[in-house]
Amino acid sequence: MSDKIIIFDTTLRDGEQSPGASLNVTEKVEIARQLEKLNCDVIEAGFPVSSPAQFEAVKRISGEVGIIVAALSRAKEIDIKAAWDAVKNATKKRIHTFSSTSDYHIMGKFGHDRYGKTLEEKRKTVLQMSYDMVQYAKTFCDDVEFSAEDAGRTDLSYLSDVIEAAIEAGATTVNIPDTTGYTMPHEYGYKIAELKKRVKNIDKAIISVHCHNDLGLAVANSIAGVENGARQVECTINGIGERAGNASLEEIVMALNVRKDLFSYYSEINTKEIYNTSKMVSGFTGVIVQPNKAVVGENAFAHESGIHQDGMLKNRETYEIMTPDTVGVSKTKIVLGRHSGRHGLKSRLIELGYNLNEDELNKAYKTFTKLADKKKEVFDDDLRIMMGDEIFSEATYYHLRYMQVNSGTNSIPTATVCIKCNGDELADSATGDGPVDALFNAIDRALSTRYKIESYRVRSVTSGRQALGEVAVRIRTEEKSFTGRGVSTDIIEASGKAYLSAINQLKIHREELESMIDAHEVTEAV
Amino acid sequence: MSDKIIIFDTTLRDGEQSPGASLNVTEKVEIARQLEKLNCDVIEAGFPVSSPAQFEAVKRISGEVGIIVAALSRAKEIDIKAAWDAVKNATKKRIHTFSSTSDYHIMGKFGHDRYGKTLEEKRKTVLQMSYDMVQYAKTFCDDVEFSAEDAGRTDLSYLSDVIEAAIEAGATTVNIPDTTGYTMPHEYGYKIAELKKRVKNIDKAIISVHCHNDLGLAVANSIAGVENGARQVECTINGIGERAGNASLEEIVMALNVRKDLFSYYSEINTKEIYNTSKMVSGFTGVIVQPNKAVVGENAFAHESGIHQDGMLKNRETYEIMTPDTVGVSKTKIVLGRHSGRHGLKSRLIELGYNLNEDELNKAYKTFTKLADKKKEVFDDDLRIMMGDEIFSEATYYHLRYMQVNSGTNSIPTATVCIKCNGDELADSATGDGPVDALFNAIDRALSTRYKIESYRVRSVTSGRQALGEVAVRIRTEEKSFTGRGVSTDIIEASGKAYLSAINQLKIHREELESMIDAHEVTEAV
Repeated sequence: MSDKIIIFDTTLRDGEQSPGASLNVTEKVEIARQLEKLNCDVIEAGFPVSSPAQFEAVKRISGEVGIIVAALSRAKEIDIKAAWDAVKNATKKRIHTFSSTSDYHIMGKFGHDRYGKTLEEKRKTVLQMSYDMVQYAKTFCDDVEFSAEDAGRTDLSYLSDVIEAAIEAGATTVNIPDTTGYTMPHEYGYKIAELKKRVKNIDKAIISVHCHNDLGLAVANSIAGVENGARQVECTINGIGERAGNASLEEIVMALNVRKDLFSYYSEINTKEIYNTSKMVSGFTGVIVQPNKAVVGENAFAHESGIHQDGMLKNRETYEIMTPDTVGVSKTKIVLGRHSGRHGLKSRLIELGYNLNEDELNKAYKTFTKLADKKKEVFDDDLRIMMGDEIFSEATYYHLRYMQVNSGTNSIPTATVCIKCNGDELADSATGDGPVDALFNAIDRALSTRYKIESYRVRSVTSGRQALGEVAVRIRTEEKSFTGRGVSTDIIEASGKAYLSAINQLKIHREELESMIDAHEVTEAV
Repeated sequence: MSDKIIIFDTTLRDGEQSPGASLNVTEKVEIARQLEKLNCDVIEAGFPVSSPAQFEAVKRISGEVGIIVAALSRAKEIDIKAAWDAVKNATKKRIHTFSSTSDYHIMGKFGHDRYGKTLEEKRKTVLQMSYDMVQYAKTFCDDVEFSAEDAGRTDLSYLSDVIEAAIEAGATTVNIPDTTGYTMPHEYGYKIAELKKRVKNIDKAIISVHCHNDLGLAVANSIAGVENGARQVECTINGIGERAGNASLEEIVMALNVRKDLFSYYSEINTKEIYNTSKMVSGFTGVIVQPNKAVVGENAFAHESGIHQDGMLKNRETYEIMTPDTVGVSKTKIVLGRHSGRHGLKSRLIELGYNLNEDELNKAYKTFTKLADKKKEVFDDDLRIMMGDEIFSEATYYHLRYMQVNSGTNSIPTATVCIKCNGDELADSATGDGPVDALFNAIDRALSTRYKIESYRVRSVTSGRQALGEVAVRIRTEEKSFTGRGVSTDIIEASGKAYLSAINQLKIHREELESMIDAHEVTEAV
């Protein structure tokens, strides 16, 4: 058995299922390219059957990267067909199909009598379905992964049977997810070890682990899996994902890397791209990274207390088990300015992980020069925010043409806006409790709308006094929530742009819904 | 051996060492009270010798709570004496003293020849010092804890000797910190198991674990320690602390709680107070909690994807291993308004964990009525923010009396301020790149100051349209950084208040420095 650990990144699938994380197709492609640069072995690009936008994203990514592109599908023909259609043009492709195997999931999702009357009967149905659908996937693709959803809470003997059937049907990777983040490391490790013993044909497939972080143990469980025979780890950048998220790619990779003395296992991740990737994913998804996050948090390499600082000065190794530059945090700040030019901008953006075509570069340069006029010094974080906001944003309906806000301690905050929409200009004004509220009210008046603001967040502000601020606004309709972003050196203007951007997202979604082939099919369970 | 796990919370000591987390004495006392309500067994209240403010905080907390109050000290007489003076009036008190035991630390901190010429000699010095200082601490206090700093990277045989000496000298708790977050769970567990075997007098003390999260393994390591014989776990709320922080109290406690089927160990934490405590600590320290944080993150109990939502509707247990109400996340929102009255406010604040005296309640009620005038509905989060900002804030020099800001897409952002200071009023105006920049410039002009803005962050905004926004501004001087907070329904006003508050912090710090007895002694290493 090789000691190479296959890193399967699911930031674009499980990660994007984080509430509030929304990525457009261009952003997904950009992240996929960066994941290739990070040297991931496999990226799960999405769940094609679930929406035309998901399908489109997987298809576009398949055309862009040379590493394995996986597409998720339930154990249903329609899903598998959609997954195949989306990945078939990739250089290397994988169909990833899953069934739910725990009693909780079987009773919850296969409650209907048509799946069998007793639990025993339902289990048989699920096993047969898994076998059949892996076989079906194999008619399209050699590389087929099967996952037993909620394997962490699945009876070991039944789990062995399902995994054996999946391998018999042709699965080349078998994934044992701890879907609910329930297991303890020794318990999860034992499960993997037992599967290696019990499943007769286990040597014909690679065992994969996929751990969730509900009890803070996703990374430890993944490592316990590897120690007991797993050779693929599914994880996400910054540990984003459903609920408390998935195992963090950066933590697993750095644990293997820092503890080379202990482990023979290794990943081929280019650790120097970790920081860029973390920043890009946080920027595009809007899921913030807490300062005390391991490896990529703002404080991961910072030391505050007097004792520690003193120790640090004498010897870096006193408190540091890895150096910042191992993960791509550079000590020297490169600063661009008005005279940096197109070429300087382009090469810096490439270093930060952004791959622009000619059109995008033109757009970026135009935005950059405007920014450099306002700010004397343009830092990496300014560029990252600029890229997240303007360059990869997609078609919009409404555009903020003009705004003016007055506010103060003894006056009623008042805002005036003018919004452009298909050649029309809609202007209005309103008051509010603060300048942001006044601005949102003015926009609502101009557009005759009124949305519930689910969250308003100033996501990041770059350093220095002439800082660039980025605002994210989430609005809620009955169907779904939509997050919009806006950037400006004026935080109020950024807020207005973000609110309009959320409204634009909603418009795009409604258009997409109308064009959906079979919306009903998708929301029905397996 | 009892299966009760002693929960030792170090939020107020190790947690407060998070870069940028600054707590005033009143806030520390409030958190200590809440930690008592959470039913922690021990709280480490601070490091008394390090500053008069630390000393004062430990002393005040000692007078307020009935649970064990621990104070940290290096293995030096001056430290131990200060620790004792600070905790001596507590109902239950503990002196916690530590030496560094790994070769990295010994060579880094005891490099000077006076500690011995060879590593072997230096090790002997450290062992003797540990023995002597535990003995010295015992002259004051029965309950003495000894920590072997960087035990995770300390040679097992030397570590055994040091621990044995500490117990012989009278230590009743021996702590084995993985200070740099370096160890793997099985390795750390093995270390604890070996200490239990090798240290002859180990039964005379309780073994404690203290794990850092640099590789995302702090919780797993703590649990591995417990499984191998540790009966005290040191941890912090939200996992805050140096660098990537400490093991999260809430994750460890919930792991033991959710997996009662697996473990005989248990804590006596009142889990229903977890959410309140998390919110309070995040509010006071300003260290944000990422949405995908286990147990207390905004998304910890949220489900986004269609598949999951469908499964959830059919059966909550499909994806939830604990219910939100177990940790105190309430489903029913209690809303206060203009007519809620003093009594209604008081009882709601108590439910949220705030303990006010008559003066504080008066102040809170005044702020509340102003807020309720602006917002029709006052939510829990509004109250939490209000408490963090106004009620527990301490003496100030400068006060924002008036401000007015104009900004817009086609105009130059302009701000006017009037600041009150000891009866004087200082007024001025300035322009800037945005309204916040203009406001900071106006404040600087009025006060004839100009500080480097290290970070500007809108930390949270409550829900709804008439939201309350909280801004944190960190300024940097040569000596130190200072974080100020401001709250308002007007985000620009909140920014101005925050900047002034940071300047006030700086003023307080300089005053404190002047009053320090022996500033030099404190920054010198052991």
